[in-house]
Amino acid sequence: MGWGDLGAFGEPSKETPNLDQMASEGMLFLDFYSASPLCSPSRAALLTGRLPVRNGFYTTNAHARNAYTPQDIVGGIPDSELLLPELLKKAGYVNKIIGKWHLGHRPHFHPLKHGFDEWFGSPNCHFGPFDNRALPNIPVYRDWEMIGRYYEDFKIDLKTGESNLTQLYLQEALDFITKQQASQQPFFLYWAIDATHAPVYASKHFLGTSQRGLYGDAVREIDDSVGKLLGHLQQLGISENTFVFFTSDNGAALISAPKQGGSNGRFLCGKQTTFEGGMREPAIAWWPGHIPAGQVSHQLGSVMDLFSTSLSLVGLQPPMDRQIDGIDLLPALLQGKLIDRPIFYYRGNEMMAVRVRLYKAHYWTWSNSWEEYSKGVDFCPGQNVSGVTTHTQEEHTTLPLLFHLGRDPGEKYPLSFASDEYQRVMEQISVIVQQHKVTMVPGEPQLNVCDRAVMNWSPPGCEKLGKCLTPPKPDPKKCFWPH
Amino acid sequence: MGWGDLGAFGEPSKETPNLDQMASEGMLFLDFYSASPLCSPSRAALLTGRLPVRNGFYTTNAHARNAYTPQDIVGGIPDSELLLPELLKKAGYVNKIIGKWHLGHRPHFHPLKHGFDEWFGSPNCHFGPFDNRALPNIPVYRDWEMIGRYYEDFKIDLKTGESNLTQLYLQEALDFITKQQASQQPFFLYWAIDATHAPVYASKHFLGTSQRGLYGDAVREIDDSVGKLLGHLQQLGISENTFVFFTSDNGAALISAPKQGGSNGRFLCGKQTTFEGGMREPAIAWWPGHIPAGQVSHQLGSVMDLFSTSLSLVGLQPPMDRQIDGIDLLPALLQGKLIDRPIFYYRGNEMMAVRVRLYKAHYWTWSNSWEEYSKGVDFCPGQNVSGVTTHTQEEHTTLPLLFHLGRDPGEKYPLSFASDEYQRVMEQISVIVQQHKVTMVPGEPQLNVCDRAVMNWSPPGCEKLGKCLTPPKPDPKKCFWPH
Repeated sequence: MGWGDLGAFGEPSKETPNLDQMASEGMLFLDFYSASPLCSPSRAALLTGRLPVRNGFYTTNAHARNAYTPQDIVGGIPDSELLLPELLKKAGYVNKIIGKWHLGHRPHFHPLKHGFDEWFGSPNCHFGPFDNRALPNIPVYRDWEMIGRYYEDFKIDLKTGESNLTQLYLQEALDFITKQQASQQPFFLYWAIDATHAPVYASKHFLGTSQRGLYGDAVREIDDSVGKLLGHLQQLGISENTFVFFTSDNGAALISAPKQGGSNGRFLCGKQTTFEGGMREPAIAWWPGHIPAGQVSHQLGSVMDLFSTSLSLVGLQPPMDRQIDGIDLLPALLQGKLIDRPIFYYRGNEMMAVRVRLYKAHYWTWSNSWEEYSKGVDFCPGQNVSGVTTHTQEEHTTLPLLFHLGRDPGEKYPLSFASDEYQRVMEQISVIVQQHKVTMVPGEPQLNVCDRAVMNWSPPGCEKLGKCLTPPKPDPKKCFWPH
Repeated sequence: MGWGDLGAFGEPSKETPNLDQMASEGMLFLDFYSASPLCSPSRAALLTGRLPVRNGFYTTNAHARNAYTPQDIVGGIPDSELLLPELLKKAGYVNKIIGKWHLGHRPHFHPLKHGFDEWFGSPNCHFGPFDNRALPNIPVYRDWEMIGRYYEDFKIDLKTGESNLTQLYLQEALDFITKQQASQQPFFLYWAIDATHAPVYASKHFLGTSQRGLYGDAVREIDDSVGKLLGHLQQLGISENTFVFFTSDNGAALISAPKQGGSNGRFLCGKQTTFEGGMREPAIAWWPGHIPAGQVSHQLGSVMDLFSTSLSLVGLQPPMDRQIDGIDLLPALLQGKLIDRPIFYYRGNEMMAVRVRLYKAHYWTWSNSWEEYSKGVDFCPGQNVSGVTTHTQEEHTTLPLLFHLGRDPGEKYPLSFASDEYQRVMEQISVIVQQHKVTMVPGEPQLNVCDRAVMNWSPPGCEKLGKCLTPPKPDPKKCFWPH
């Protein structure tokens, strides 16, 4: 999803009454960021509280390239990383993931080995292979074992966009919450739905209900589901004991627009880029009786903050043996305070940009290569800001491009290098960046090696279903990351 | 102002609490349009309920050119036009205009000759001349007579952007409302402030208070003023008897961005163009006790509808001897009905585009000429949609460019001419356009002739102030309209 996909964020069809109401009953964050312009690294950062460059969810195969976890990836979340559910367990929490995991699919990366107690969903995204039978379709798990595969047992009609997956994920969530309430055990639910990822899908009841086409149908189904989840918490009488946060893992994929891609509002470009459209996210916090209703926050936030904030909520300290990039947002949430902190925008192994208060400095720019662009891959359709949305990797480390995101949220007008404002602001930012770079110790990159042999040929449980496939011989290679 | 300038419409700084509250207490229109991408024609249409091509606020000096009322314009609103205040008088209303008139500045165009009973404000916009003394500064009137001039008696500090004009306009409005309530006379107040027009200004109290710079300061002052006006109606106990509508006369002028121009959200281009950014407007209706609170409407609306709606509110019929383009919005406002009607997008003498439900067909495209563009005049900064934001006037009358504004509000992806959807929709639209064109009788164009002799050298009242200037000899010429 993109920043501009919800009514509360100005989507011109305003079709998200439940999320808008969630905002009106809670706190709307206007300056909230993913940890990466891409899915897997952002999700790894959410669950570890650490930048992908620290937790290993990046590549060094090429400079400033986005990488994720396709079926042939060898790596995944390292055992050395401490995930939020592992820590919450210590406070007696039962942890469940519903939906997309995306932190590696080989057995030792299984979410139940990393702190989750239950799982219903998939290790990878539901895109490709689309039942072509030459490659394994993506498996769907219940807890330890595969219970079927996409396109075989869990249908997505690529022609009509019909699939009931979000309804399955919703029911699973409602049941889990009911069970937890009945057993009086505290819980952490990571409801990681993926209907707005291409190929976008919605269930029959929602198809054709949006002004925005299939993408809007999917958003409406998610909106409806959130309404049902919040309503369920209220009905069970546990809403005042349940902290809920809604956000996304990266900006809208404009490459899939207009049919399968959402909106980043007036922000520049989208998914895959470190412009605002790639990383600024819709974000809503809800906790009746604790977070005052109808608040709007300009706190600079990050999905990594959900790690630290969750620990704070349950009375735990973040791990002291490693650098945590997330901060505890409770002062912002409960007292409306503004905590001064920078946001770093990474693409693979490179810090592309940094935001300090209202200023954003680009140390590197690029959207994608001329070669890819000439093939029709466009992360900035209809947009071209000269010297900004570049098609070569351009270095600006000695004279970063500086934007004021209040006056110019669309990153169209770099400040003059000669201006007093530029000089004054860059002096402050340089110190912050230098400090960040000097103390940065990158983790071992996990997304460098690919091998068709590690694909989901024979996930655990396949034998019971008669769905085991024979893997080819191992043939590890450097993964190719074009963007 | 642009569609994206208010918090309720997704401005990323969300700094308009009063207008957002007005929306939450009333009805937010997401699909509301000006009658022209430029000020004067749009205002003439608002007050006559008729397209500028009918009421004369256009030029035939060149094809599809924007024209307005600078100081040297010879024309203005024709006596043959019936303005809203002229009609409201019949129902016993006292009519006041505060702020910018812009329907001609020569004596017979004076607003008090066209139905207004009172006036505090200016016949022209406050831009240029900037006190250069070679040309008359714009006069400010109280009723029949000039009481001073901009930059002489009514200051705007071009360096700091400081001016107390909005405060003067606010106080004048509060006083008028108080007086009308005391005398129990119904009133129509046209509060035509202009602080967000370049050169943008705000009073001292608001300077530096916005994340958005001076433009945001001006928006904040307007927002604060609207809050004070609505609060005043409530304090006087007449809010349930007062219909209030907030909108703008054209989209944000991106040519003045980022310092002096606002935001059109995710819509394409801005002022001067017939893309959505040029004509889709923020719009909020407020009438406690009548319009249900918290409504969002997808009614296609136009500033011209305020003419017909106002007449309907006071129990009058629109004039039957002429074509009225505005419709009565009361069914949409009071019963949430959707009235099916097209929106026509004109630029000067040409119908550029038409919207029917969610589809928009462009019969002509252009932003501005290569010549102007090469001089730095850019109505679509950072945006370039190939074949759409053209720099020559391109005709598509045989195969209009068709967009679906739900899936593609940014007008970036024209539908394929070969698609069934294109064929089906264009069949419907063609009938509507043909009907419109066949019955269209353009009015006498008023914006063709310019003459420096008609400038505000000696407005009525100048002799009392010692501010009469000597006009040059008459020298009428064709006005030059580059855009």
